[in-house]
Amino acid sequence: MPSTTAASRARPAFSRWISESNNITQQFMTLGIDPGFISLAGGLPASEFYPSQAIAEASQRALARWGGSAMEYGPIEGFPALREHIARRMSSQAGRPFAAENVLITVGAMQGLDLIGKVLIDPGDRIVAQFPTYVGALDAWRPRSPVYEPLDWSHPGTGLESLRAAKFAYAVPNYSNPTGVLVPTAARQSLLDKVERTGTWIVEDDPYLPLQYDGPAGPSILALHGQMVPDGEYDGPVVYLGTLSKSIVPGLRVGWTVASRPMIQAMALAKQSSDIASSMLTHAIALELLESGCEAAHVPQIVQHYRKRRDALCAAAEAQLADWFEWEIPPGGMFVWMRARDPRIDTDALYAIALEEKVAFVPGSVFDPAARLRSAMRINFTRNAPEVLEKGIARLARATKRLLDTCERCSSCSATPEVLR
Amino acid sequence: MPSTTAASRARPAFSRWISESNNITQQFMTLGIDPGFISLAGGLPASEFYPSQAIAEASQRALARWGGSAMEYGPIEGFPALREHIARRMSSQAGRPFAAENVLITVGAMQGLDLIGKVLIDPGDRIVAQFPTYVGALDAWRPRSPVYEPLDWSHPGTGLESLRAAKFAYAVPNYSNPTGVLVPTAARQSLLDKVERTGTWIVEDDPYLPLQYDGPAGPSILALHGQMVPDGEYDGPVVYLGTLSKSIVPGLRVGWTVASRPMIQAMALAKQSSDIASSMLTHAIALELLESGCEAAHVPQIVQHYRKRRDALCAAAEAQLADWFEWEIPPGGMFVWMRARDPRIDTDALYAIALEEKVAFVPGSVFDPAARLRSAMRINFTRNAPEVLEKGIARLARATKRLLDTCERCSSCSATPEVLR
Repeated sequence: MPSTTAASRARPAFSRWISESNNITQQFMTLGIDPGFISLAGGLPASEFYPSQAIAEASQRALARWGGSAMEYGPIEGFPALREHIARRMSSQAGRPFAAENVLITVGAMQGLDLIGKVLIDPGDRIVAQFPTYVGALDAWRPRSPVYEPLDWSHPGTGLESLRAAKFAYAVPNYSNPTGVLVPTAARQSLLDKVERTGTWIVEDDPYLPLQYDGPAGPSILALHGQMVPDGEYDGPVVYLGTLSKSIVPGLRVGWTVASRPMIQAMALAKQSSDIASSMLTHAIALELLESGCEAAHVPQIVQHYRKRRDALCAAAEAQLADWFEWEIPPGGMFVWMRARDPRIDTDALYAIALEEKVAFVPGSVFDPAARLRSAMRINFTRNAPEVLEKGIARLARATKRLLDTCERCSSCSATPEVLR
Repeated sequence: MPSTTAASRARPAFSRWISESNNITQQFMTLGIDPGFISLAGGLPASEFYPSQAIAEASQRALARWGGSAMEYGPIEGFPALREHIARRMSSQAGRPFAAENVLITVGAMQGLDLIGKVLIDPGDRIVAQFPTYVGALDAWRPRSPVYEPLDWSHPGTGLESLRAAKFAYAVPNYSNPTGVLVPTAARQSLLDKVERTGTWIVEDDPYLPLQYDGPAGPSILALHGQMVPDGEYDGPVVYLGTLSKSIVPGLRVGWTVASRPMIQAMALAKQSSDIASSMLTHAIALELLESGCEAAHVPQIVQHYRKRRDALCAAAEAQLADWFEWEIPPGGMFVWMRARDPRIDTDALYAIALEEKVAFVPGSVFDPAARLRSAMRINFTRNAPEVLEKGIARLARATKRLLDTCERCSSCSATPEVLR
């Protein structure tokens, strides 16, 4: 009999997708622990504004109100009173009726992405996805081995043939992750029209809706469909994802999917096979927070803070990074998407140097299904105070300078251009 | 442009596994709602014993103790103090040291099964699984399209070639779901030896450990491996799953996996892609419950009640079902596995009649990867009071009688034997 060590070396390999994955989200969560480190990486709300007292009170009310039924398994689809509440909320937001049966409560919006992958993707199936693509969506779908085609919002944009060949289109129209872009209403409508003509599904991921700094977000694609079919049982193509993670706290892990009943039923089957059901206690607490108006009172406060932080970050970048990067000031959300103006800047290489300078961002490559996008980076502005953001940008400028100094002493660029772009 | 309805009919199909699935768990959760119905189906604890007051107090203490850090994202692997606690608990249970890095906190043990499937199964990979097989494990792994071979515990039992060809073996040695069987220690040791010789993984699913009615459970396979390799960093083949769902409440959705670091790291990557992280609040509450001795105090109480319920159910069955079924009295767990003595009894057909009689059980077919096991059923005895169990068994006897009456009036058995067996 071989020794344990020898045996363990011989153990069966992990699934193929594992080797194609990255642990960047895990890294960012760990980086946050070092107090000397400045993380501009994660998509995290600012914890100093969490409504902790309201959550403590909501927990007590939830347990007093629901008792044992907040401690049971399931229902898989979510705590019934919370499903009803979200159905009413979404009916009002989208201007057409939704029933509780159109709602699945998920573990953040992230589990919605995982379940959509489970119910729609067989290996090799096609997805038309907004490019660059939210790293969490790529993570969620990687185990199902899809093939990606970029979504083109422009006129005439993504063609009917692409959509017809796809299982679904994936879009983050409001303050997209990672680019912060607000997609114009006409482009949303045009995509919806094409989706309807081809009969495919469209996954609308809308976590940043509450974080509006310069006027309103666009009408959701779900709402645009509501204008076309304003009543009757919802049978449309939109699979809409919302969450409380950005507007209240992420730690409750409460999000939702709104879709046609067959889609919700299929996703519930996939949820049953993922975790049987979520913690009903977290659903009951979320319901208390929503019913008591906590979210409505809290969002205007954080929006005010986040707007200042965005402006502080963009001003610091204007002063220190403008020679090397360009960006648009995002009208909402959590991120500034910086694109390198200097062709020698490889954001994967910059990332390694930035870690040495004790600052982190998210390199563009993780938002590319092919991991080739190495000329851009995502910078978060919600998590840190203005003075910390300024310090972080200074470190990032130092890292960029060091990268370019290295380039100037090196003659291998022409030999290995794929390393730099 | 086609009408919305026409378009929706043309929408892309769901993944292939969906059509091979069943929604039986979902059904059971719904059946529980009708007060006139007696469900002997789910694997549910008795809610009247839930330690509600202790949970309410633990929630308050957790929020006061941890504040904002119970409301954050992640860490993916779980709330650090809870991981430490579980590492100490499992070190003591298994008689060898485990570090926090050997622990992943999951959404019940069920999410552990889902993550194991994600990190180990590519389509067509083989699993050697205890047969009949826990329906939740089949559910969890169906989206990954594995191939099953039954695990044979007997001497000489499952061969080395089968294990060598498998990604992992799956076992529920303590009071198995669905059979209630307690696997002898020698059989566990023999399987472990073969697993070590072939270098495969073994998934040990141990949710029923606390529910011991007739003496102790067997040593876990993890503990048997600990006897072989009692110290050093854990590098063994066992992937052990535990949970608080049976010993405290299921609604917190707190379970754990203990395994080697590479396995925990891979599963954490899969968890990141499933839900980013669990609710830290539920982890902090679980920690308070464990530290305050709630579980230790609660388990002896429920064991006393559950033993009475088991005995009441078996006595009622002895009086009313013994002509048609045979079973062993389970020494622990939640289930009695009843095998038909009469070859005309098809438990899928019986299930349909039982629903008319307002009683539910779980038909054997859902515990068979090929759905062919139609001569047995799983009966739960923990959820209902003794008098309700007796009423449920009476209804089941009526349903069985009706099924056989139909058989006697029918001549098609010889023509369609596969319908009956």
